[in-house]
Amino acid sequence: MRGAPARAGPAAPRSPRRRRRFPEKPPAPTGQTKHPRHPGFWKMLAVATCVALLGCLQAQELQGHVSIILLGATGDLARKYLWQGLFQLYLDEAGKGHSFSFHGAALTTTKQGQEIMAKVLESLSCPEDVAPGRCAELKDQFQGLSRYRQLKTPEDYAALSEDVEALVRHEGRREAGRLFYFSVPPFAYADIARSINSSCRPGPGAWLRVVLEKPFGHDHRSAQQLATELGSFFQEEEMYRVDHYLGKQAVAQILPFRDQNRKALDGLWNRHHVERVEIIMKETVDAEGRTSFYEEYGVIRDVLQNHLTEVLTLVAMELPYNASSAEAVLQHKLQAFRALRGLRSASAVLGQYRAYGAQVRRELHKPDSFHSLTPTFAGILVHVDNLRWEGVPFILMSGKALDERVGYVRILFKNRAFCAQSQKDWVTARSPCLPQQVIFYIGHGELGAPAVLVSRSLFKPTLPSKSWKEVGGRPGLRLFGRPLSDYYAYSPVREQDAYATLISHIFHGRKGSFVTTETLLASWAFWTPLLDSLSREVPRVYPGGAENGHLLDFEFTGSQLAFCQQQVAQLVRGPGSAPMPRDFQVLRATYRESPLVAAWPEELIAKLASDIEAAAVQAVRRFGQFHLALSGGSSPIVLFQQLATGHYGFPWARTHLWLVDERCVPLWDPESNFQGLQTHLLQHVRVPHYNVHPMPVHLHQRLCAEQDQGAQAYAEQISALVTNGSFDLVLLGMGPDGHTASLFPQSPAGLDGEQLVVLTESPSKPHHRMSLSLPLINRARKVAVLVMGRLKREITMLVSRVGHEPKKWPISGVLPGSGQLVWYMDYEAFLG
Amino acid sequence: MRGAPARAGPAAPRSPRRRRRFPEKPPAPTGQTKHPRHPGFWKMLAVATCVALLGCLQAQELQGHVSIILLGATGDLARKYLWQGLFQLYLDEAGKGHSFSFHGAALTTTKQGQEIMAKVLESLSCPEDVAPGRCAELKDQFQGLSRYRQLKTPEDYAALSEDVEALVRHEGRREAGRLFYFSVPPFAYADIARSINSSCRPGPGAWLRVVLEKPFGHDHRSAQQLATELGSFFQEEEMYRVDHYLGKQAVAQILPFRDQNRKALDGLWNRHHVERVEIIMKETVDAEGRTSFYEEYGVIRDVLQNHLTEVLTLVAMELPYNASSAEAVLQHKLQAFRALRGLRSASAVLGQYRAYGAQVRRELHKPDSFHSLTPTFAGILVHVDNLRWEGVPFILMSGKALDERVGYVRILFKNRAFCAQSQKDWVTARSPCLPQQVIFYIGHGELGAPAVLVSRSLFKPTLPSKSWKEVGGRPGLRLFGRPLSDYYAYSPVREQDAYATLISHIFHGRKGSFVTTETLLASWAFWTPLLDSLSREVPRVYPGGAENGHLLDFEFTGSQLAFCQQQVAQLVRGPGSAPMPRDFQVLRATYRESPLVAAWPEELIAKLASDIEAAAVQAVRRFGQFHLALSGGSSPIVLFQQLATGHYGFPWARTHLWLVDERCVPLWDPESNFQGLQTHLLQHVRVPHYNVHPMPVHLHQRLCAEQDQGAQAYAEQISALVTNGSFDLVLLGMGPDGHTASLFPQSPAGLDGEQLVVLTESPSKPHHRMSLSLPLINRARKVAVLVMGRLKREITMLVSRVGHEPKKWPISGVLPGSGQLVWYMDYEAFLG
Repeated sequence: MRGAPARAGPAAPRSPRRRRRFPEKPPAPTGQTKHPRHPGFWKMLAVATCVALLGCLQAQELQGHVSIILLGATGDLARKYLWQGLFQLYLDEAGKGHSFSFHGAALTTTKQGQEIMAKVLESLSCPEDVAPGRCAELKDQFQGLSRYRQLKTPEDYAALSEDVEALVRHEGRREAGRLFYFSVPPFAYADIARSINSSCRPGPGAWLRVVLEKPFGHDHRSAQQLATELGSFFQEEEMYRVDHYLGKQAVAQILPFRDQNRKALDGLWNRHHVERVEIIMKETVDAEGRTSFYEEYGVIRDVLQNHLTEVLTLVAMELPYNASSAEAVLQHKLQAFRALRGLRSASAVLGQYRAYGAQVRRELHKPDSFHSLTPTFAGILVHVDNLRWEGVPFILMSGKALDERVGYVRILFKNRAFCAQSQKDWVTARSPCLPQQVIFYIGHGELGAPAVLVSRSLFKPTLPSKSWKEVGGRPGLRLFGRPLSDYYAYSPVREQDAYATLISHIFHGRKGSFVTTETLLASWAFWTPLLDSLSREVPRVYPGGAENGHLLDFEFTGSQLAFCQQQVAQLVRGPGSAPMPRDFQVLRATYRESPLVAAWPEELIAKLASDIEAAAVQAVRRFGQFHLALSGGSSPIVLFQQLATGHYGFPWARTHLWLVDERCVPLWDPESNFQGLQTHLLQHVRVPHYNVHPMPVHLHQRLCAEQDQGAQAYAEQISALVTNGSFDLVLLGMGPDGHTASLFPQSPAGLDGEQLVVLTESPSKPHHRMSLSLPLINRARKVAVLVMGRLKREITMLVSRVGHEPKKWPISGVLPGSGQLVWYMDYEAFLG
Repeated sequence: MRGAPARAGPAAPRSPRRRRRFPEKPPAPTGQTKHPRHPGFWKMLAVATCVALLGCLQAQELQGHVSIILLGATGDLARKYLWQGLFQLYLDEAGKGHSFSFHGAALTTTKQGQEIMAKVLESLSCPEDVAPGRCAELKDQFQGLSRYRQLKTPEDYAALSEDVEALVRHEGRREAGRLFYFSVPPFAYADIARSINSSCRPGPGAWLRVVLEKPFGHDHRSAQQLATELGSFFQEEEMYRVDHYLGKQAVAQILPFRDQNRKALDGLWNRHHVERVEIIMKETVDAEGRTSFYEEYGVIRDVLQNHLTEVLTLVAMELPYNASSAEAVLQHKLQAFRALRGLRSASAVLGQYRAYGAQVRRELHKPDSFHSLTPTFAGILVHVDNLRWEGVPFILMSGKALDERVGYVRILFKNRAFCAQSQKDWVTARSPCLPQQVIFYIGHGELGAPAVLVSRSLFKPTLPSKSWKEVGGRPGLRLFGRPLSDYYAYSPVREQDAYATLISHIFHGRKGSFVTTETLLASWAFWTPLLDSLSREVPRVYPGGAENGHLLDFEFTGSQLAFCQQQVAQLVRGPGSAPMPRDFQVLRATYRESPLVAAWPEELIAKLASDIEAAAVQAVRRFGQFHLALSGGSSPIVLFQQLATGHYGFPWARTHLWLVDERCVPLWDPESNFQGLQTHLLQHVRVPHYNVHPMPVHLHQRLCAEQDQGAQAYAEQISALVTNGSFDLVLLGMGPDGHTASLFPQSPAGLDGEQLVVLTESPSKPHHRMSLSLPLINRARKVAVLVMGRLKREITMLVSRVGHEPKKWPISGVLPGSGQLVWYMDYEAFLG
């Protein structure tokens, strides 16, 4: 057949004159095979390959053979999208030099699998512009290249490998590569991966690509385990983790759009111009029939951790100079992840559609007493804490049983204009006072198609005219508050399914459209703490569909999110429906004969912050300055955030900040107490540089060396600036062993004596510490001890009963001589 | 008449049954007078006073006599507002114990003045609820207490004083006070003030109040002069400077509203929630007939410097604990002034209605070649640089010949909500996604009355129900994009003219509604630099009225303001229409054989900032950090602002900041170079604390003492952290004497030798300095010398011609050994 002038195959599907019929009898394949094969398979394979080959010989060089193995070939995803995607790949690529074989594989027996596969292949469709007759031919070819096989044991994989090698030999080509598409549940990953690695790797010079489908773990730990396991079988560059959202045309266009419109966007894509970013995926369907999966995952794991987070990084990341370099994109994505502010339970609102509970009980055979807490709706507020995005809310929202099916990313710009004319005279679309937005319309919704929309008053965007065309008039259609005519609107010239796009990218080795191990783990690291903190949260129940009304509207203050409407009634009674923290007020009592403020964490921090501000205002009024000594640790961080965002009257310019204690690490070490202070407070308020007093733990390139006299130097600084060495306020914590500041039971330094600042030894790492001494602490006008969390319960109980025994429990030595001591405890520490 | 049971006067205007007729023949006044007086004056005065007195005797104690002297009694303002305001005062107060006399005064002859005044008094009107007959009686009384007198010479004032004393004696009362209302041009102030002070002060125990009308100067200097002059005659507490806007009911309500709605507003009134503040006064009238005044002042001096600025401070100031304390309000206003970011010419857009030029030429008899540059429209962007308001645009706008007459303050809140339901299903007024705003509607416009509006989705405000009532339905009326029904809307129970309100406040000594010397000067200090920088700016010509279309719409980027539409044609050709800076591009050349970048200031700074960022990115990429040494002075400040707001990619976290030189003052001294760096750069970016290296000029409570070895310490720091002591970039300036860093021609230190950091002597104060040495500077990889402004022209010329003579011109010694030197000069420095 070689050299024959035949020209066929999908490379020229629109040129019927040149089309030839397949030859009746292709040469039979040669080579030994261990397993019996359907005789027609090789035959058709050879035919189609040769035909494709002929086309390519005219256009390109002879290329190698590519084997595509679809694992889980009879499953839902494969039937719905993957086979169609592979068929599309064949249509696009078969004429360009490679030869192909497609291997459907599953645990299903051969006969059954063959039957299912035959049906699936029969139902494949061609692009609209292919005539029905031609389509039938192409499907014939594709079917001829495809066959089902049962893959269970390592031997099965070895056999597959031998078959592929035989086929390649038969074709007289080299092997180009093998692509394994894992469309199987994650528990099956490890076995399959091991088998591929041990028994089915291609020889040298040919590539191996394994394609993985989510879920990629359930939380950071399980994702890490899975990644480690897969990493023991495959190289990073061999793995293609699919997030099909990255194959959606509007999503895939985000980076190219940012790149091609750099000039217009350069000045706009930042906190000065962007009011908010909304990343939304609304569904009308519910989870019925899928609750066995859904009950384990919920909306955050199902949609937000992956799809919406990928979109978030595409919008938020710094645009690399070379936006088409997958490596540069990866590095910039990781940088964006590092800039994400950690989520707290207050960053989320959760909902569950009313019918969900019953569906779960029915499908999972649960008793009537079972109440699921799995959210089917979530709104999340994300902040990107860098100079570009500081303060811009990124709103992520997804849910089932909502009023419409739609997905979009909306970048709403701040209104930077003032219109001098009365509003009724504004000329629509031209007025600079109308909303300005850029929208990546992912699909569905009122527009019913992917699109990129840019407000006409913003700028005229550049899109590749080959693949995107302007959308014609749709009178009456309003999107995001404005008629469609207010936008420059573009839709794809040809709509393409996400899987088809991604399969093509995998074939071409374009890794930029896939989830890497690093971004996957970064995403889980971001989401896992929230998922943990929400695990017992009772979602708001919503009726579903249009009836939801305003029930799911939410709003934010600072980084707190809450439903706008008060909960009308508690519809779900589950384990979490015990009295909620908000049911309690701040409690005043005494503890160790000093005032105690007890409350749930949020109120407690709010109260402490107010008290500190009041002390600051008073001190500045009386003395012109306020000397505040702060402890490290995690509890103060929330306090710092509260002070940074809620207290406008705080006299920062007159405040001196001192450290109560410090770890002997460089100040830029993440373990340094100073780092927490810097990240969560200093970067947000305006304390003059010279009013900030980090402890000199790092002198002459050494850490806390006695001979560097850092403690003495700090004591001198204090003596020089703080009258009588009396801090206006000292904030302390209490450790589970009764330590406070860095004064430990085992180490006598600083518990008494003349020294103001001392070096001490901690039982936990890093062992070396610098600390204010107890006598110095007790000179303060006010000492606040903040104690939070369940882990403090025991020591709280104990210390409430002991006397003045600082050598056993340093905290018991805190008793300001002429100042005031106040304990701030949350209910978990106080009540357990 | 004393003791008679008559009860009359305005204290009981609505009780006709009790009203008595005036007695026919009141007793004649006694007491000597130097000047002849109209005989009926004393007669009526005595009658009315007695009548009023009788009323009060029943209600209150006998109080003193108040004389009110209206200077400029026949002028425009007096005729339109002031007499009516005084009449209102009489209606309100005469029944409460004081007796009154009203003295109209002017330079006009007695006869002419009397005639004009008679007409004015005849045209006075009573409040709506006073019956016509009763109104006539009250007017009679008021006319009887009022008379005209010519006041020119100090003798005239002495005579007035004697007359008042005689009258008081006659009444058998004590004198309570004298109120002089200056409704005269400002040039007349000094003479009148001198005369009052020398010849017409009341005796001990009685108050003197002088009421001054704007303009209070033309710029900061003239306002200061006027204030000094007035201050030599009057105490601060004696002066009441009127800004009638402070008497407008909606404006006067701003602070009480903030006070009474503290709870709701506390969390909202800040940068996290406020999107923008608009302070607007639009007029439809033009300046015809007033151009002799207007041509000198223009819209900024006429409206923005006073009215809109007062409103700005009321909105922006911190709310004092006691909002009704005038002193607390004053202090907080001054604090707000201090927080205002300085205006630059780019902060403004200016316009002039088309007919203005011809009006000026006609009215001021100017030749056809005269083109006025006086703006009749201005839009200004103000930023309040404190933690509460940072980043919130305050838009001030006023103009003549606009499409509508309206004044308002609009606080638009950020949309903090996300509505889960499709927009078409939002329930009006209840949806949290609709715009949320608080509006103080000053008057006119479509509403036609003062009002306070609060979006219903925001909160239900508290207003004093005695003076404010809810506004009823006005179907079809839309305000600020929403139907009136979307707002809680309140209007005054009784509308009152601003002057009547203010006259009442003056009478009661309520100083809070008036402009103090301090706020006046603070306001001029804020506006004068802008006025100076705009003095040659050509305003955009606009047709006037509805035809303005979008021509005057403006928008902002950062703190720059510009019209949205490109100028279609240059309609005014005036002195400012020479080629504009923007017509030139950045020029590249050489200077002293090194590269020179020359441009207009804005482009120059933009280029330098980009070059520094590029150097930073490159250094961090290669070495992991960037060492930048910065000079003090004013030119770098603009650079700092540019770096702080425009450069998101700048690797601040890896940047070390060093000082090139420092003045021997404490770091917190405003003269310290470090202060400029801190205020304009450090507070806006995120450089870690330990990467900032101020020069140790202040050790052991001493400044630059040799024995403290600060220079050596800094040199050690540099050696420890900067490889080879080679800064990545050193930014220098050049003084008019050829100095650079703090290396001066007269002082040899630092010009050569081994020392890296030296103490030097400056010819100008503060004399003592610390500086990097020339050898250290010349080790840098890159040195940028920034030279800006006309004053540098001569030295620029000179230095271009000299060789390497650092002892004469230290700048000539800047020549990096292996680094690069680049000169950055603006055209004024380069071309003169």
